[in-house]
Amino acid sequence: MYKEKGVTMTRVPLLPQERIDDLLTHGLHIIQSEEVFSFSLDAVLLARFCTVPNKGKIMDLCTGNGVIPLLLSTRTKAHIWGIEIQQKLADMAMRNVDLNMLQEQLHMIHGDLRHIYQVLGTGQFDLVTVNPPYLPVPTGEKNKNEHVAAARHEIFCTLEDVIVVASKLLRTGGKMAMVHRSSRLVDICFLMRQYRIEPKRIRFIHPRIGEEAMMVLIEGVKDGKPEFRTQPPLIVYNEQNEYCDELMAVYYGERTALE
Amino acid sequence: MYKEKGVTMTRVPLLPQERIDDLLTHGLHIIQSEEVFSFSLDAVLLARFCTVPNKGKIMDLCTGNGVIPLLLSTRTKAHIWGIEIQQKLADMAMRNVDLNMLQEQLHMIHGDLRHIYQVLGTGQFDLVTVNPPYLPVPTGEKNKNEHVAAARHEIFCTLEDVIVVASKLLRTGGKMAMVHRSSRLVDICFLMRQYRIEPKRIRFIHPRIGEEAMMVLIEGVKDGKPEFRTQPPLIVYNEQNEYCDELMAVYYGERTALE
Repeated sequence: MYKEKGVTMTRVPLLPQERIDDLLTHGLHIIQSEEVFSFSLDAVLLARFCTVPNKGKIMDLCTGNGVIPLLLSTRTKAHIWGIEIQQKLADMAMRNVDLNMLQEQLHMIHGDLRHIYQVLGTGQFDLVTVNPPYLPVPTGEKNKNEHVAAARHEIFCTLEDVIVVASKLLRTGGKMAMVHRSSRLVDICFLMRQYRIEPKRIRFIHPRIGEEAMMVLIEGVKDGKPEFRTQPPLIVYNEQNEYCDELMAVYYGERTALE
Repeated sequence: MYKEKGVTMTRVPLLPQERIDDLLTHGLHIIQSEEVFSFSLDAVLLARFCTVPNKGKIMDLCTGNGVIPLLLSTRTKAHIWGIEIQQKLADMAMRNVDLNMLQEQLHMIHGDLRHIYQVLGTGQFDLVTVNPPYLPVPTGEKNKNEHVAAARHEIFCTLEDVIVVASKLLRTGGKMAMVHRSSRLVDICFLMRQYRIEPKRIRFIHPRIGEEAMMVLIEGVKDGKPEFRTQPPLIVYNEQNEYCDELMAVYYGERTALE
């Protein structure tokens, strides 16, 4: 253990090309690597958007280097699991837990999310979050870096896989929160309802006011009643091309909830 | 025929409590009645939002006093049908066609939309518009005025009826455009896809910036490929509680397309 800028951290081994970044909230730090995986604004927004239970169990599917569980740990005492299929990323996520000394609350799993409910049981979770790969496998140019490709394309799991597993993990009344390209909204609504997760709350992310939305934050409730709220649009950049106030507050941890 | 403020109109009989309002665009006028039916901002927005074919056939379901066909006539040479189940409203719609001397382009039908494709045929229409009743029958307090109740509640047709009929009327590649409460968005997406109308384009209507959306404009394509665009939010009121510029331009006919 050592202290840096007043924050206590554990020394963890870093692989070549890895670095430790400041998560800018609650003294959290995170191991990243341009080569393998670094988190995006989308993950931060999802971690702030989802409705978090005070206790109970949370699962983050496609957790990557575990950024969402790390950020969620600032909002809840619930136990948080993360699952990642890529060995290098799962390993990074595990070291991120150690780095922040969150071993009692955060539990990282290396494995295929499609089978996780066979291990952790069905109907046990209060919240499932996911920042899934956005692009279908066959369209567009696949990234040559296998790690980046797997994080971006539906190579190891499809949107349907993710929703099926979330539905199995969630208890009745439990929530699923997702960030995705807004172009997939109809697929998301259709599949969520098909697998008994009723979409309840949505926020579109527009790069600038007057521009089309690129991304969408959506939350559904397992076996919930149809009742859908479209929250105010989230505008990323202002006219000066700087992050808007709301986004700055979220990004720098001054506001931990976007609910 | 007579001229009023430079616009030629036909004299048509008015019933008690009916009045003639200026549609504020292209010299159009409309018979309305507080008692029976007067059009809403939603109808105007829908008529400006939908993608209109230059020619061919358009159907407006739940046409009320025919305001949408009247407004669409300023954007296209296509033949436009309107269907309304309430006798008093269908009669008003027919007189509105006469009033504006649009008998060659506009065709109003009094009848039940659920059977209309048996008369007009399937796969013949390029565009179907609809500003349907927003509220399910059992919830909330039903309006005691039977005409207003039928326009607001799903008494004569449900959302599913409307989408089923639109799908039957539309040719492959034909469009369906709808305005509805945004709380029904998941139902709309689910039913459209179920009946082979792929949602393609959406605009949410927020009363003010920073407030939740109340209404949504959505357009789908019969047998279209999944590919969904979320257009910039439409904000109704500015900080001075006046209509925003975009809305003023639409309302007063300076802009006839919101596409």
